Formats: sequence, structure tokens, C-alpha cells
Amino acid sequence: MAIATPFDPAARRGQLDITLPTRYAGTRRVTLRYELRGRAGAPLVLVAGGISANRHLGASAEFPESGWWDPQVGTGRALDPRRLRLLALDWLGADGSLDAPIDPADQGDAIAALLDALHEDRLDAFIGCSYGAVVGLQFAARHGDRLGRLVAVAGTHRAHPFASAWRALQRRAVALGALQCDEADGVVLARQLALLSYRTPAAYAARFGPARVVDGRVRVGAEDYLDHCAAGYAATTPPVAFLRLSESLDLQAVDPARITSPVTLVAVPGDLLVPLEDVHALAEGLRGETCLRLLDSIHGHDAFLKEHAAVSAILREALDDLVACDAAAVAA
Amino acid sequence: MAIATPFDPAARRGQLDITLPTRYAGTRRVTLRYELRGRAGAPLVLVAGGISANRHLGASAEFPESGWWDPQVGTGRALDPRRLRLLALDWLGADGSLDAPIDPADQGDAIAALLDALHEDRLDAFIGCSYGAVVGLQFAARHGDRLGRLVAVAGTHRAHPFASAWRALQRRAVALGALQCDEADGVVLARQLALLSYRTPAAYAARFGPARVVDGRVRVGAEDYLDHCAAGYAATTPPVAFLRLSESLDLQAVDPARITSPVTLVAVPGDLLVPLEDVHALAEGLRGETCLRLLDSIHGHDAFLKEHAAVSAILREALDDLVACDAAAVAA
Repeated sequence: MAIATPFDPAARRGQLDITLPTRYAGTRRVTLRYELRGRAGAPLVLVAGGISANRHLGASAEFPESGWWDPQVGTGRALDPRRLRLLALDWLGADGSLDAPIDPADQGDAIAALLDALHEDRLDAFIGCSYGAVVGLQFAARHGDRLGRLVAVAGTHRAHPFASAWRALQRRAVALGALQCDEADGVVLARQLALLSYRTPAAYAARFGPARVVDGRVRVGAEDYLDHCAAGYAATTPPVAFLRLSESLDLQAVDPARITSPVTLVAVPGDLLVPLEDVHALAEGLRGETCLRLLDSIHGHDAFLKEHAAVSAILREALDDLVACDAAAVAA
Repeated sequence: MAIATPFDPAARRGQLDITLPTRYAGTRRVTLRYELRGRAGAPLVLVAGGISANRHLGASAEFPESGWWDPQVGTGRALDPRRLRLLALDWLGADGSLDAPIDPADQGDAIAALLDALHEDRLDAFIGCSYGAVVGLQFAARHGDRLGRLVAVAGTHRAHPFASAWRALQRRAVALGALQCDEADGVVLARQLALLSYRTPAAYAARFGPARVVDGRVRVGAEDYLDHCAAGYAATTPPVAFLRLSESLDLQAVDPARITSPVTLVAVPGDLLVPLEDVHALAEGLRGETCLRLLDSIHGHDAFLKEHAAVSAILREALDDLVACDAAAVAA
């Protein structure tokens, strides 16, 4: 039986300059920013979200602001820092300093370099959602000897051409804004288009009412929501960071046969960006123990941020061996 | 048995200035442009397409350029000018001269006014696709005493909030372009976003390959297609026309219980803009004889422009009584 240790060690942040060979930008000196939290000696789990996520997973004593995955991270939650060491990083390129195509393989290699710098041999688990799943698959393919288990939520081995087209048009919006030296407006529109792709028609129907005429223009039910959500994003996201991380999703190409680690795949049947067929194709191609969990949700691609209980149950199950083994080791 | 008459009378075009009370723009003097083609005395069928369609349905001796629905219109086709009189019009607002919200009810009333001006009591059938279906439902609700049968393809009694959000962001693209006096680029992006919504992820997967890096940027498989299709549209569509007709789709609100005419509904299960649930809700609410045909197609909303044989069969079936009755009358 797993027994929690009673303390929750301090979260700490750091940054490391590393030399990274990249696929499209040559060998670069880059800065990696990370946050690490959890009991010393506990299993090490890297947790990665979408292109807008960052190294701050959840509120802690040291960093009390909300993280991007608070419902899953914290004492008593699926990702409990009393039982696990939780590592997260800001994506390579997230600060806008790398204005070149960023292959998701580069992100996987950056994570391996981060482990080296932290003197960690391996990750007991890599939990990735959306772009995090894309990078997790790269890490599993390229550094599988350093990985215990991958949990890949809403992401696959290839970019779907429809999702890629949707993202390419988001990048066109940024370009249209940039033409007039109004990059912020371009990023706002791009983010709104991205937000649209993250949910489902059913979710919009449940939430938003009909259009109205306001000041001689038609304003639809979702516009307040889209305005609100995109404004904050554009205010804090460098256009170059958005463009290059958006592109990176479209460069995903992993041969599933290169992955031999155990993998838990989590798919949302209504996900407009990651169709279930692609997750099935991935599951069939993987070489290691594979488990596919369906997350039935009205929220589509965003389900990992909305279906707290179901996601928690999947994470607990996927990490069960890890936590149990660790508890046994601690008890031994 | 229906026997075709051997001639295909001249197509003719006309335009009429009418006085039209509108919901949001007061009573206006507007110009309606129409094309009429077919055997004198044959059943009168109005045919209407999406917001980018116009009065030219198909090539004829008089107007040999391609129309927007050539596969369905012409000798031997489902809409055969030897058997039917085919009436089509440019949408109110399509010339960009009406810069105010255009309710789809206004379009229905404009069609009634056009019938008056042409001294026609009624339409034997109204065949509408996409926006044409939206307007057809308005015509059926408001002028049902002047309608034999409605065939509504890929359009319903209400705008779906997800589709509305998608369109609202297209209008934002036009606005972003207009900010820099570059409306054409805004319309291009808006049209590309619209094109994306007209197809399905499966159609993109079947057609487009992976992304490539070109000149330091990621270019996805569908970008050539989107560029090609949108350029022509932007070159010929006034931004105001796009904006106001796009808005008009979002203003759709018809009580199905007001419709007592026979209706054939045609739904595409994968249509991202018109979910099947909404078509079912419409079918349940209609008061007259109702027939629902599913058009199973990878092409989604655009199926009416792609599934020529299946659409033809549905149209022939829907118009069967009409053509048979007319043939009987001719034979009598």
C-alpha cells in the first residue's frame, strides 16, 4: 500500500544554458527554464502541456500563483509532490528568442539535456498533453532508454493535415497583423482561432446563445468569451514564440515503431485536432506495452484541462506501479 | 412517364429595382439581379447556393461560362431546363451596396418581391444549399402559400453557435486587414478560414501531405490549395458583401412550426457547420410532410458541390412529382 510521506518539499526554479544541436537552426546555445517540486528521492515525472503551457504546473508555497494544471497537481491530487518529483519546463522557443523552425525532436533533446544538467539518469514517467504528448513521443523515440512510461494525452506521432491547415491560418493571422505593425491584434485573432479548435461544436451549443445586432454589427454568442481568453494570451506571448511553437506542432513525424517504452494513450473522441483514427494508428504501431484510454468529453481537445476527475483517474492508474514501487522502496 | 420537350429556351438575365422593408436597414430601394432559364410554362424552381454563389447556375448557350452548380443543371441533369424553369438570383448585399445587417428573412422577402415583379404567383420548388437553405426556410415560413416544396441542403432554422464563432473570426480577419487598408488580404484569410470549415478532417487527410520547411518557415500540405481557392474569391468579392452575408448566416432564427410546406431536408453527417442534431431538431419541428435524406460524404458541408450523383438522385426524387405532373399536363 502506498503511504504518503508527510512533507511537500519546496518548489524551486532554475535556468540552464545548454548547447543544443537542432534540426533546422544548427547548434545553438539556448536557455532552459524549469521548475522542480517534490520529495527528494521520489520518482521523477516530467509534466508538459500545450504550446501555451509553461514550467509552473500548480500553486505551491513558494510560487502561489495558479499553474496551468492545478486540478491535477498538489497534495492529495494525482500528481502529488509528496510522492513524486514533478519537473516541468518552459518550451524551447517560448521566450521568442529562437526565430527558426523548432522540430519537436529538438524539444525532446532539450529535455534529455536538461536531465543531464540536473544529473538525472532518467524519467520514471513523462506525462504530456497536446504539444506535450507530441514531444513526449519524440522523447520516447529518441531517448527511450531514459524513460519509464509515457502518458500521451491528445497528441500523436503525426500532425493531422486538417489541424495543420487550421494552425497555418492562425499563423497567417499573425502575419496579417505584422504587416501593419500590429502584431498583438494578429496574435489575438490567432489565439481565438486556436481556442475554437480546442473545443467542440456541442460545447459551444451548450454554452453560447444566439447572435445579436450591436451597433450595426452582428455579434455572436461566443465573441465575449473569445475576446476575454485571447487578450491575456496575446499580452504575454511574443508573436515569434506563438509562430514557432505553432509550426512545431506541424513538424511532428515520429515512427511509432521506434517506441518500445510502455505508453498510455489518452484520446478524446470529439477532438477536432487529434482524430481518434490517428490515435488508433499510433496505438497499433507502438512496440511496447500500450494502453488506450478514451476520455469521453464534450470539451474536445481541451478535455485534459476540463475533465478533472476522469483525467485524475487515468493519471493515477498510469502512475500506480510507480507510486506503489516507490512506496515499497521507502517502506523497505 | 415524363417526356422531355426537345428545346431548351434561352437563358435570360434581368435586374429589377424594388422597394424592400428590411429588418435592420429600414425600407430600402434595392436592385435584384436574376437569371431565368427553361421551358415556358414548366414548373418554376428557385435554386440558391451559399453566400458565394450567384444567379448563374450553369453554362448555357447564352452564358457559356461555368456556373456554380453545373453538375446539376443542364440538359439531362437533375435540374433540366427542358422540364423546369430555373430561377436564381444574386443575393441581396452581394454587390456590397448594402452595408447593414441583412436578416435572412430579408432575402426571403426579396425573393417574394422578385416573384411579384416577374408576375409569378408561386415557386413550385425552392432548392437551397447552405445559405440558400437558410433563406429557403425563411421563405417557407413567411411565404409558405407561395411554395410547393422546399429542398434544404446543409442548412437549418438556427445558426449553430460554433459555426457562428467560426464565421465571427472570419469577419475579424477582414477587420484586421481593413485596419491597414489591406482589405483584400483580410478577405483572403477570411475565405481560407471559411474553406476550412466547409470540408472535414478526413477529406484533408486524404488529400494533403505533411508539412515542409520552405525558406525558414513551415508550410503545411493544404496551404497551396487554400491560397489558390481564396485568391480568386477575394479578387471578386467586395469586403462589405462578404461581411454582411457572413453575418446574415448568424442571424438565422426560424420557428420550424411556422413551416407547413413539404420539405426535403438533406444533411451531411460530418458537416462541421450544420451538425446533424440541428437537422433532426428541424425535422421534428416542421409541420408539413418532411423527408430527411442523409448524404454520407467525406466532403462535409461542401458535399452538395462534390457528391454529384447522390445529390442528383435526391433532387430527382424531390422533384419527381413536379416533373411527372407537368409531363402529364403537357401530355393532356
